[in-house]
Amino acid sequence: MIVPRLIERKRNGEPLEPQELRELVLAYSAGQVPDYQMAALLMAMYFRGLDRAEMNAMMDAMLESGKRLDLSRLAAPRIDKHSTGGVGDKVSLILAPLIASLGVAVPMMSGRGLGHTGGTLDKLESIPGFRTALTLAEAEKQIARIGCAMLGQSDEIVPADRKIYALRDATATVEVIPLIAASIMSKKIAESLTGLVLDIKRGPGSFLPELEDGTQLAQAMIDLGALHACPVVALVTAMDRPLGHACGNALEVAESIAVLKGAGPPDLIEVTFALGAEMLVLSTVASTREGARAMMDAAIGSGKALRKFEEIIAAQGGDTGVVKDPLRLPQARHRADFTAQREGVVQSVDPRAVGYGVIALGGGRRNMEDRVDPSVGFVITAKPEDHVLKGQTLATIYARNKDDLDTGRSVLEQAIVISDSAPPPLPLVSHRITARGVEVLA
Amino acid sequence: MIVPRLIERKRNGEPLEPQELRELVLAYSAGQVPDYQMAALLMAMYFRGLDRAEMNAMMDAMLESGKRLDLSRLAAPRIDKHSTGGVGDKVSLILAPLIASLGVAVPMMSGRGLGHTGGTLDKLESIPGFRTALTLAEAEKQIARIGCAMLGQSDEIVPADRKIYALRDATATVEVIPLIAASIMSKKIAESLTGLVLDIKRGPGSFLPELEDGTQLAQAMIDLGALHACPVVALVTAMDRPLGHACGNALEVAESIAVLKGAGPPDLIEVTFALGAEMLVLSTVASTREGARAMMDAAIGSGKALRKFEEIIAAQGGDTGVVKDPLRLPQARHRADFTAQREGVVQSVDPRAVGYGVIALGGGRRNMEDRVDPSVGFVITAKPEDHVLKGQTLATIYARNKDDLDTGRSVLEQAIVISDSAPPPLPLVSHRITARGVEVLA
Repeated sequence: MIVPRLIERKRNGEPLEPQELRELVLAYSAGQVPDYQMAALLMAMYFRGLDRAEMNAMMDAMLESGKRLDLSRLAAPRIDKHSTGGVGDKVSLILAPLIASLGVAVPMMSGRGLGHTGGTLDKLESIPGFRTALTLAEAEKQIARIGCAMLGQSDEIVPADRKIYALRDATATVEVIPLIAASIMSKKIAESLTGLVLDIKRGPGSFLPELEDGTQLAQAMIDLGALHACPVVALVTAMDRPLGHACGNALEVAESIAVLKGAGPPDLIEVTFALGAEMLVLSTVASTREGARAMMDAAIGSGKALRKFEEIIAAQGGDTGVVKDPLRLPQARHRADFTAQREGVVQSVDPRAVGYGVIALGGGRRNMEDRVDPSVGFVITAKPEDHVLKGQTLATIYARNKDDLDTGRSVLEQAIVISDSAPPPLPLVSHRITARGVEVLA
Repeated sequence: MIVPRLIERKRNGEPLEPQELRELVLAYSAGQVPDYQMAALLMAMYFRGLDRAEMNAMMDAMLESGKRLDLSRLAAPRIDKHSTGGVGDKVSLILAPLIASLGVAVPMMSGRGLGHTGGTLDKLESIPGFRTALTLAEAEKQIARIGCAMLGQSDEIVPADRKIYALRDATATVEVIPLIAASIMSKKIAESLTGLVLDIKRGPGSFLPELEDGTQLAQAMIDLGALHACPVVALVTAMDRPLGHACGNALEVAESIAVLKGAGPPDLIEVTFALGAEMLVLSTVASTREGARAMMDAAIGSGKALRKFEEIIAAQGGDTGVVKDPLRLPQARHRADFTAQREGVVQSVDPRAVGYGVIALGGGRRNMEDRVDPSVGFVITAKPEDHVLKGQTLATIYARNKDDLDTGRSVLEQAIVISDSAPPPLPLVSHRITARGVEVLA
């Protein structure tokens, strides 16, 4: 394998053979190909794209570079949900226990905050004692016992993906849809899933704002799933405003607990149930989406879903007391309401501004070394199209000190636009994408 | 400076500011920017190109990364010649002493064999004892004393270029004309030249076979020279067949000595004199190209040029005896004539096949670690359009052993095509490119 020759061919627009890519990725993972050659190849891929065979070869090699969760002895179906990332997106925290409480195994491998978006791991770690760094053996045992584990990507699973992803992040080569698809799917296939539900965020707060790009990503992941007997169903959901009210780690855990108790903001419940229904139908635990919704209602009504969350927290060393008493979660020392400067209609709540605002308050990372303060953030009750009066409370700011309250205020002044009229926001759940095609829902 | 953001902007087709590129190149040279980020940027440059300001900023930063030859105390004009590389191209070996013998300072910094082409340093080192690794201080002293030094690129001069060039070689990002221009010109400006003559090779044996690409490179270098008070004149010369007869390190030194003695193949003499005339006119030592040719004739006729070569060899520790007795150069143990299989017209002598053939005989490198055998190679007397008889000698093979003679034979069978008629080869010296434009000479 002469690496510069491979780079040159890709650069010139020739596709690489699957076997060549496989060897290259494995050699890179083993430290036998230097970062600079992989970086040049990735940039050539940015310009030339990857065909389906190349994308699949990348994924297979990443899988081959590490171990998998061995869940083959489980009788239960194994379903995960993956979101392309948004602001206020705490859906995983609700779905994992909810769906697991209904007899589906949920091996949920999540990430940390990235850019302006939050990460499930950071949110979970706001629960005192909660440990996300499970070994594969620990995760396997926990899933066999209680049907769910919520863990971070370790060095054991798809190390090639981890290494390539870090390189892409440092070399402006993240935005290559087939590489995004291969990266996500390698982790999901390594979870030994029998089905995957995707939440493709669209709108200005998402990584792929355009519907077309999101659709392309979903279709790429559906293709990859099909090659590994893992059917994939995607829903396109709105990320032109934050999801739910809470934005910030502990605040989002509290809101998730509220939903598991039968309360919580309606938009969050709608998106969660739409995705959950797909998970239950994919698992064959429910035969229709309507039936699935009834099952989820029952699991929440009976407290079964909430108890499953307690079980997960207990299994991963966290303080289960937060479920009954969310005030045991880290509390921000300072809080202040943010009110409307004028009467009118909420035109927009900019999720990107809110997401970066949480980081500005200390609730996210500027660099990978930063420590996250789990207590800070916003609870924004105002939603696009709401009619508001002057002086009405639109949001609450949670901060470490008084200066940060001012920071929060100026973030919200930018983020929340009130005007005389508002264009309709994106429909909350707009498209359903499966191997059969794209279905418009709203 | 956030490097991924710079890469992203270049990737998206936005030009970078000169100051940004300068900082980046200097930081890279100092080891503060990792290879992988530079590699991704270089690949983005391959796809997006560089504008004139970016190209100049790259060159300036490369210059700034190291020292220069300090020749400012010299009264003499300082002229170098640079070739884009070919097979049998030993012109530098003749021009350096010839032009220096006429009162022009020639600070000649050269390279090693690259791809299928030979390198001046490898050729010089076939002279027993000849040392090309001069320090800048040594080169300065030698040029002040005898008007010429022939040296390799050291770590002192444009280290950023050296580092970037090695990276480009390993990442399939060599073929970017503004980067080629900046790389060459940074070294030439660092030589403190008052003028530069370029030999732009064209045809299948050159790195930029197309006239258009060669012209573009020449014009880029003319532009860069103009910014540093270094006028540049380029000649486009033929590389659809080897230049002269000898291809191989010691063989080429012997042929160069022959030219300095007034003999040698006519095509080699023609190209050498065309380039030399430009050097002498640029230096103002001659006022016309015709006058310059007369001066060169006289320098060869009187033995002055040959004595200058002896001086250079002596100054750099070489065996001056090779000048009088070229048999003191390393001699191949085995040699064999190669004869025509049929009567006909020589249609082509493929320079690329011959160049790789020299490497196959051990006279060039497959890897940078390979040791070069200076004695081996070919002397090919057959030229395109020659009428040859069956059994007539076309070439002589010089090899280390009998197996290599067979290798050499099969190389020449591929390289030398005899047929019933031959299309005309490229004109030897076809275009002259200056700041004023492109002049067609033949």
